[in-house]
Amino acid sequence: MSDSEFDDAIAILGGTGDQGLGLALRFAKAGRPVVIGSRKLDRATAAEAEVKRAVPDGNVTGLDNADATRRAKIVILSVPFEHTAATVKSIRDALVPGQIVVSMGVPLASSVGGAAAHMVGIWQGSCAELVASLLPAEIGVVSAFQNVSAHRLRELDQPVECDVVVSGAKPEREVVMGLCEWVPGLRAVDGGPLGNARIVESITALLIGMNIRYRVSEGIGVRFTGLPTPTETKPTSR
Amino acid sequence: MSDSEFDDAIAILGGTGDQGLGLALRFAKAGRPVVIGSRKLDRATAAEAEVKRAVPDGNVTGLDNADATRRAKIVILSVPFEHTAATVKSIRDALVPGQIVVSMGVPLASSVGGAAAHMVGIWQGSCAELVASLLPAEIGVVSAFQNVSAHRLRELDQPVECDVVVSGAKPEREVVMGLCEWVPGLRAVDGGPLGNARIVESITALLIGMNIRYRVSEGIGVRFTGLPTPTETKPTSR
Repeated sequence: MSDSEFDDAIAILGGTGDQGLGLALRFAKAGRPVVIGSRKLDRATAAEAEVKRAVPDGNVTGLDNADATRRAKIVILSVPFEHTAATVKSIRDALVPGQIVVSMGVPLASSVGGAAAHMVGIWQGSCAELVASLLPAEIGVVSAFQNVSAHRLRELDQPVECDVVVSGAKPEREVVMGLCEWVPGLRAVDGGPLGNARIVESITALLIGMNIRYRVSEGIGVRFTGLPTPTETKPTSR
Repeated sequence: MSDSEFDDAIAILGGTGDQGLGLALRFAKAGRPVVIGSRKLDRATAAEAEVKRAVPDGNVTGLDNADATRRAKIVILSVPFEHTAATVKSIRDALVPGQIVVSMGVPLASSVGGAAAHMVGIWQGSCAELVASLLPAEIGVVSAFQNVSAHRLRELDQPVECDVVVSGAKPEREVVMGLCEWVPGLRAVDGGPLGNARIVESITALLIGMNIRYRVSEGIGVRFTGLPTPTETKPTSR
């Protein structure tokens, strides 16, 4: 594996789940090397085969979570919230400084037997801050992708039509904002410091309730209005 | 005052502030009777004069908060969060069963000397639930309008272009959703039970941070994608 392949690659842990597999399909279709991680190698290789069926020329590999982590600069955590801490602990020793861990988990109350439209409170404030609390400071943690519908990600011939609020420290945040441009219809919005993840994560619970009330199985998304177009203004360095 | 004028009228307590005055202008322009409430009568009458200058044929009256409350079926609370509890207590005896109190407050940390892009935790869960906890059960409390930009409300020749998530018990929630249709560019979205106000209120803090980062003084708004058009599906009775 060359350095440049490591830099280009995107590892998706929990890439066998609905939303993770959706991201894997989109990034593979866009030409990025994709590494799908799972606790169980056979599930990772099954997901690899599924992506290859949909994107025959995609560069995709299924590995266990720790091996997948060693293969990509950007490591997206797409595991159910209740498996987040255990997954982070299981890959901690595989991470090296400079890697970026992307948290897309949401502390839905369904993780403890409650409703998916409700949240549980997280001591650190959010799933993303919980992830950061378990990692050394040299590993950047960024929050993103929580509100992107799995259904829309998997309709490969349609744009996704959703804004992605990206929160975290500046350089890593900008890397993940750039990543959104690889998926048609996704727009990155600068979500500021990682602490804002507690708001962004809760929007998922609101959208889940709306999906139920309006019976929208494809998933309701969110767009922000009044944003300057990319060429007008770059976000300030706050 | 006739019963039908009471039913049509909208009282806006704190209608002298930026956002409250914006709503007063919009509802007056739409032909609804508007009653502006303030702790100080002279400020209420000054706001009345300001609305009349912009909307000469508007039906608008400035009164103190308790008198304004007696004049309208729908009472919108548009006071800074830190004045919410005191305002509710001051109008409690003026309310009668069947009235609807609309909470648009947000527990921003600026209410206790912190940043406007941060929140403080509310024991009851949200500003709207705090309001409900201070009122008898016969008064319906609905959460709405938190994320509507004051600047855009006051540009009377432009549509507002923002979704309003409306939360609360069913019959009152539907009344307030109907109210949104009186303002061009506002769209009501069924936000389910009042408890969801804790999410909707926090979106305001996220938008304030975005306004700063992107230097958008007019205010960034929010739209939900994938909602059925009104004729397609009514929200279910959840």
